[in-house]
Amino acid sequence: MARASMNNVELIAVGTELLLGQLVDTNTAFIAAQLAQVGIDVYATHAVGDNRGRIARAISDAWQRSDGVILTGGLGPTVDDLTKEAICDALGVAAEFHEPSLQTMEAMFAALGRPMRENNRRQAYLPQGSTALPNPHGTAPGVLAFRGDGKFVAALPGVPGEMRPMLLEQLLPRLRQRFALEQMIVTRVLHTVNLGESEIDHRIVDLFERGENPKIAVLAHDALCDVKIMAKAGCAAAAQALIADVEPVLGERLKGFVYGVDEMTLEGAVHKALRQLGSTLAVAESCTGGRIAAALTAVPGASRSFVGAVVAYDNAVKESLLDVDADLLAREGAVSEAAVRAMALGVRRRLGSDVGLATTGIAGPDGGTSSKPVGLVWLGLALPGGRVETRELHIPGDRARVASRATIAALGLAWKQLAASPGSPG
Amino acid sequence: MARASMNNVELIAVGTELLLGQLVDTNTAFIAAQLAQVGIDVYATHAVGDNRGRIARAISDAWQRSDGVILTGGLGPTVDDLTKEAICDALGVAAEFHEPSLQTMEAMFAALGRPMRENNRRQAYLPQGSTALPNPHGTAPGVLAFRGDGKFVAALPGVPGEMRPMLLEQLLPRLRQRFALEQMIVTRVLHTVNLGESEIDHRIVDLFERGENPKIAVLAHDALCDVKIMAKAGCAAAAQALIADVEPVLGERLKGFVYGVDEMTLEGAVHKALRQLGSTLAVAESCTGGRIAAALTAVPGASRSFVGAVVAYDNAVKESLLDVDADLLAREGAVSEAAVRAMALGVRRRLGSDVGLATTGIAGPDGGTSSKPVGLVWLGLALPGGRVETRELHIPGDRARVASRATIAALGLAWKQLAASPGSPG
Repeated sequence: MARASMNNVELIAVGTELLLGQLVDTNTAFIAAQLAQVGIDVYATHAVGDNRGRIARAISDAWQRSDGVILTGGLGPTVDDLTKEAICDALGVAAEFHEPSLQTMEAMFAALGRPMRENNRRQAYLPQGSTALPNPHGTAPGVLAFRGDGKFVAALPGVPGEMRPMLLEQLLPRLRQRFALEQMIVTRVLHTVNLGESEIDHRIVDLFERGENPKIAVLAHDALCDVKIMAKAGCAAAAQALIADVEPVLGERLKGFVYGVDEMTLEGAVHKALRQLGSTLAVAESCTGGRIAAALTAVPGASRSFVGAVVAYDNAVKESLLDVDADLLAREGAVSEAAVRAMALGVRRRLGSDVGLATTGIAGPDGGTSSKPVGLVWLGLALPGGRVETRELHIPGDRARVASRATIAALGLAWKQLAASPGSPG
Repeated sequence: MARASMNNVELIAVGTELLLGQLVDTNTAFIAAQLAQVGIDVYATHAVGDNRGRIARAISDAWQRSDGVILTGGLGPTVDDLTKEAICDALGVAAEFHEPSLQTMEAMFAALGRPMRENNRRQAYLPQGSTALPNPHGTAPGVLAFRGDGKFVAALPGVPGEMRPMLLEQLLPRLRQRFALEQMIVTRVLHTVNLGESEIDHRIVDLFERGENPKIAVLAHDALCDVKIMAKAGCAAAAQALIADVEPVLGERLKGFVYGVDEMTLEGAVHKALRQLGSTLAVAESCTGGRIAAALTAVPGASRSFVGAVVAYDNAVKESLLDVDADLLAREGAVSEAAVRAMALGVRRRLGSDVGLATTGIAGPDGGTSSKPVGLVWLGLALPGGRVETRELHIPGDRARVASRATIAALGLAWKQLAASPGSPG
């Protein structure tokens, strides 16, 4: 069979809860990103309610503009779940009973020891001539169907944990097989910390002008900036070669600020730097309130380099668990360079780690003064030799933003100092 | 002027990054929720790329189905920002220069001490006959325009921090004024902890069948369940009266599990219970890694009842800072009822608080055994009299889910015990 060509698709999320704003739709972005990777353009995306006529019309309208439609949601067992009925209407076919899907469902309910209800039988009906897409994580099978002219419609469940593997393992391979996907996109992301968006722009502006392939984009989120390289080519190797042309140049321009690529997180980079040095870390947190420890312990295997933390909210805890001098606190205040230095050294000594990281600041909304306003944060990093690096920050915004920016800045300080250590190979 | 009636609107998010899946669109859910509150139905939502013809066509198509269109994004100063041009095309009007918007922008740049660039002037052009919506948090003004037949189109910036206040303060009041919004929806949310969705369903199923107004919905997220009462009426007082009919009945059925209503959070409820008792809390965290402390310190004024926390990742920290006996750890293991009991008592004593809350568990992916599998978590709560409540949990899922569910369960245990204390008025 000659393979058809496909230019673009549209995505339709089904569910009245989306139109009531009760749920943020994350499926659409996930599917769009996966389609971009294999070179399928998304022309537009939509959300419609649980209404058979409206879903069918949205499918027909999308076929006016695009070569295919992928729906999410509306495959469940209840009377509100109407996606398959709407696909039948749009295709002009009837539903037919699909025995293998029923058997799969029966086996799944039996394995769970739960009774299968009558309404689950509805899930085994499929549009005539369509293919069932197995759903290993739920009861609702997906659907893939083609019109006479080769345009397609597919439906996946709305639950992200069921939808994602079905998209990757069932739907995308079938679309690849059916359509000649001539172009694929490979993406490489360089993650930076401590560099503003405009500073990055200034350093690499000439590279933007080199052309459209690979394309370079700067994405700022929170206090971190990502530089994304997107290359389009006929195969992965050719796209990777395009990336390899520009990545070292970008790396040179952003030297000392790139903590990792692709899936690497800032907390992961801190762990990596610690492991390379063979060092351990302990944390003393005041204004960040446990966020640094939470980030570091989110990394699998964290216990190899993270010892623990003290969240010293009350000054008495700074004294009793971190050995911060009461006179120092009275003289300089808890939010001061002297205090953060003592906290970093204290947590390192008391928890027996090689490195100590500390934060103290005024997160607001109360507690600010003219000399120490809300948003003032001190960071301290006690290093193995006894040297302490400190930083003063002024973070605009509300309580949540001060705490989250201070967390990122503290992890950024630790990464930068540890990765640049004489003992570090990187 | 007689006020027109409006039945429904459509939302269009503009931006190629949405079609590439580089960004999850949260604006649409926010706007939809706000419209639901004032009784405006959303017929469908869409995302389109930065393409003038496609945006214009999406507006025209939406007017075929609906009375109005609200766009977000594409109002910036760059050549990619084409929303206003597309509105001109859809309305069949030209753009005209809007002097007041330019002056506002000039004043804003002057106040920031930044030079205004030539491309910012583009932002002062508006479709002929439209109204500029002031943007106090950015340079791009919004737009509101009406067709001859009364249908409308509005455009707001894509940056959530700019869009949200403009929607609430500029656009919605103008739509209310123009359209006879005969119905408004008032919502009341009861937040529960420690009750499963099916158990709630079982307790209140007869109330679902009472009718559509007020409507009752159960929304499960993480380990928490919200029961939402939505009442529709001609004014807020009438809607509130409908809610008042059913809320006490729901409260009785869910007694002992409702930690708060509307904006209250579980961590806020813990603080409230502590303040009512005049008690303070300290936390010892192992598998939750700082998440309980982070949640508690997110509440403004946390220092009144939260003393601090010890994240005791390494067993040596459990011994040195929490006085957990080394023999106990060797005999029972760090993940055991005896260990969590010792941690709760230890953190209470060492940090000098009235109450001590502790967690220890196996978050995975490594570290599980057949007798202590991944997902096993022990919670402990040491109360003022010296009594210690413990709980054993088995949480399915990955590392992140174990940590987040254990955090919610620990806060739920603390709330439940403290709110039910003899000294508590509630």
